[in-house]
Amino acid sequence: MQPIQKNRSSSSAASTGSTKIKVRGYHLDLYGHVNNARYLEFLEEARWAIFDARGDLEAWAVHGLGFYVVNININYRAPACLGQVLEIRTEIDRVKNHSATLKQTVMHSENGEVIADADVTFVVVDINNRRSMPLRGDILDEIKNVFG
Amino acid sequence: MQPIQKNRSSSSAASTGSTKIKVRGYHLDLYGHVNNARYLEFLEEARWAIFDARGDLEAWAVHGLGFYVVNININYRAPACLGQVLEIRTEIDRVKNHSATLKQTVMHSENGEVIADADVTFVVVDINNRRSMPLRGDILDEIKNVFG
Amino acid sequence: MQPIQKNRSSSSAASTGSTKIKVRGYHLDLYGHVNNARYLEFLEEARWAIFDARGDLEAWAVHGLGFYVVNININYRAPACLGQVLEIRTEIDRVKNHSATLKQTVMHSENGEVIADADVTFVVVDINNRRSMPLRGDILDEIKNVFG
Amino acid sequence: MQPIQKNRSSSSAASTGSTKIKVRGYHLDLYGHVNNARYLEFLEEARWAIFDARGDLEAWAVHGLGFYVVNININYRAPACLGQVLEIRTEIDRVKNHSATLKQTVMHSENGEVIADADVTFVVVDINNRRSMPLRGDILDEIKNVFG
Repeated sequence: MQPIQKNRSSSSAASTGSTKIKVRGYHLDLYGHVNNARYLEFLEEARWAIFDARGDLEAWAVHGLGFYVVNININYRAPACLGQVLEIRTEIDRVKNHSATLKQTVMHSENGEVIADADVTFVVVDINNRRSMPLRGDILDEIKNVFG
Repeated sequence: MQPIQKNRSSSSAASTGSTKIKVRGYHLDLYGHVNNARYLEFLEEARWAIFDARGDLEAWAVHGLGFYVVNININYRAPACLGQVLEIRTEIDRVKNHSATLKQTVMHSENGEVIADADVTFVVVDINNRRSMPLRGDILDEIKNVFG
Repeated sequence: MQPIQKNRSSSSAASTGSTKIKVRGYHLDLYGHVNNARYLEFLEEARWAIFDARGDLEAWAVHGLGFYVVNININYRAPACLGQVLEIRTEIDRVKNHSATLKQTVMHSENGEVIADADVTFVVVDINNRRSMPLRGDILDEIKNVFG
Repeated sequence: MQPIQKNRSSSSAASTGSTKIKVRGYHLDLYGHVNNARYLEFLEEARWAIFDARGDLEAWAVHGLGFYVVNININYRAPACLGQVLEIRTEIDRVKNHSATLKQTVMHSENGEVIADADVTFVVVDINNRRSMPLRGDILDEIKNVFG
């Protein structure tokens, strides 16, 4: 199996695993705070952005592999309000035989206050037979390249 | 070509083209009103519900046909607030050679006040070659069955 | 403090803590499955529906009390696809001094297969000073009335 | 009435009324295309971004003024797919006595293909009495500053 990698540009090598999102009116709910469900879109946006910078989703697709999230455990620690800029940091927390867990933290970009943090656990799936792949060899290397 | 129809039960024959949705906290935005984008989900929900009651999406799929919305023209006339029950009525407004337009009206279910109304124009597309089909014969009959 | 209760009709007394939602095209993501974030809206919809049937949000508001979700721990066990009817069951799992946890389960309504299950932990907050209230007395009674 | 203006930095003066959004998996629907409702969030994001760059929402709020969208007329011209970068351009189209209309165009950022275009009509509302303000004087100047 070929490496699941793209030629990384120097700019993507500089990527820090951090994504910024500004809170807009359509993100809010009746309390004037970002809605619970919307945070999961912010976390997903951050994972895609990292993948853009460091990974190669097409190569994974060519290998017939996909990522399925199997668990999200999210703490809502403080409300986020209109106009605040949120920074989402993503790093790998632990890797087991068949799953890996990312730690994602949503902070106020100015003062670093933690708004929410989440453990997001995913498996790598063979899309044809829907079985989860063992996380070793090239697959593990690439996970570490992208999220590590 | 076979008719694009399912065996209609008496209950679906009784369907009135009306769908009800209760406004929840996660529908609102910073003004405490249902957000502009969310109304388009409400309208889509109402179209799916009518299709469930009167149409047969699988038969359309078997014929390789899909619906693509090409224009939505929506008036926001009054705000909708937490706990209100909205009723969405859908009826066919006009049919042209290659497109048809539905009139969808969102009302307070209790007092009939119009919250929003929209013209939604769609084409029927051959999914394989992405060309829009002329709206006549069985296709036109079925559109009238479902939305008329 | 007066009881946080409404006069319950026999129909709301019969409420079973179960909500049904049909999967629509706008719920899906690139895999053709219901998107991770959308499940949190389904869970919230189910909580609001139970509150409608058994609780009295206005009474809580009159007492200056609100519910804040502080943690969601959700397992995604099987994909949900277009046209499937999902049933969401909600029951109280445990109550601690200052927080309570609901167990919410999303199932195929026809065969009972579990699609997702979540622990949703909330606090009751005094909206004026944003402090969480101890869960005892009338507050505890009402939580048990609604979710128990 | 004081001017509804902020001190504009040279960088915001350089703002071009263009916003970029990359299409993610959670934006798509069952056809693998960006969902109809999601485009309205993209358009709203673009309007907020322009306001950030050129306007002063706080000043409007201090004057007790808000923007209400009263009509959106959107053409869906071509599908947008995973990974494409969309560019949204916003310009003022026409101003009438009590309403103004923006033209917003969603394009592929690489080849300029038009994906969708929309006329978005808004009124400026006195938030206290919910009456729409005549668009002249400082209000008109500021609308032209922001969107012109």
